[in-house]
Amino acid sequence: MENLTEQSASIISPAALLDHWQGHRRLTRKVIESFPEDKLFNYSIGGMRTFAALALEIMNISAKGVNGILTNEWVFTEELEPLFEDSDIKTKADILWAWDVITVELNRLFPEIKEERFQEQVKAFGQWDGEAINMILYFIDNEIHHRAQGTVYLRSLDIEPPAFWNRF
Amino acid sequence: MENLTEQSASIISPAALLDHWQGHRRLTRKVIESFPEDKLFNYSIGGMRTFAALALEIMNISAKGVNGILTNEWVFTEELEPLFEDSDIKTKADILWAWDVITVELNRLFPEIKEERFQEQVKAFGQWDGEAINMILYFIDNEIHHRAQGTVYLRSLDIEPPAFWNRF
Repeated sequence: MENLTEQSASIISPAALLDHWQGHRRLTRKVIESFPEDKLFNYSIGGMRTFAALALEIMNISAKGVNGILTNEWVFTEELEPLFEDSDIKTKADILWAWDVITVELNRLFPEIKEERFQEQVKAFGQWDGEAINMILYFIDNEIHHRAQGTVYLRSLDIEPPAFWNRF
Repeated sequence: MENLTEQSASIISPAALLDHWQGHRRLTRKVIESFPEDKLFNYSIGGMRTFAALALEIMNISAKGVNGILTNEWVFTEELEPLFEDSDIKTKADILWAWDVITVELNRLFPEIKEERFQEQVKAFGQWDGEAINMILYFIDNEIHHRAQGTVYLRSLDIEPPAFWNRF
């Protein structure tokens, strides 16, 4: 990946990037809420994962990803995507509870990342090489990507998804 | 929107953000290419727009958005989403051609944006207030969002989309 800081210019601060991410996370939470309980766990299109499974991936990557950036201790992605039936998360309320715990965790951990850490090379989840900042952008982009897939599930169920611009 | 530069820390440069965006644009181009010609223009799920229409929106926002940031001359979004039959773009090859023209345009225009411009308040497309940097992130996020919807269209057509991590 390209070096995101090879120029001297500064256009995004760590605090601002966290705010941006939490805005996206507020929207993803609304998308989770929009699913009927059963459809969250049993509906998908084209052989894809359910939105519950996608939400679980997003949560795992967010929490363990930021912890990995901070501590350089990584779990492998195989451990990130447990079979859903093996996890403690069984209901929409469980997912939203876990989501909110991670919101607090991100607000606690992210500001502990030292400024110079963002440009260090990491091996995220034991397998992806790149600068820490690129990994964080990847985590956010991955969330936007899977959330958008969930909005197609919702539309196909005749449910209007929350507006993309609504990050409040 | 939050002020993305209220801290002094610098974690992303303008050149790096452009590289990041062009990486996403390379992936979106692959998604366009993955559609069969007819499905690009006539297929959707749940009453949503076709992927051709979504690609046209992405292109319009990218090109006119960056031009707006640079010049402060904005077109309204009504002009951004012409009915597809009214545009000159009729085939997949037309879309890919327009896409590639915009790739060159972005590489030309983006570096002309002065560093201090990213923190200025703009009224994007005559209606959205915020900092220029937030608007650019919005353009990129909107592309990720609609591209991901296209990947669900592809999966539902039994076509494997290009890998999300492939930005080359």
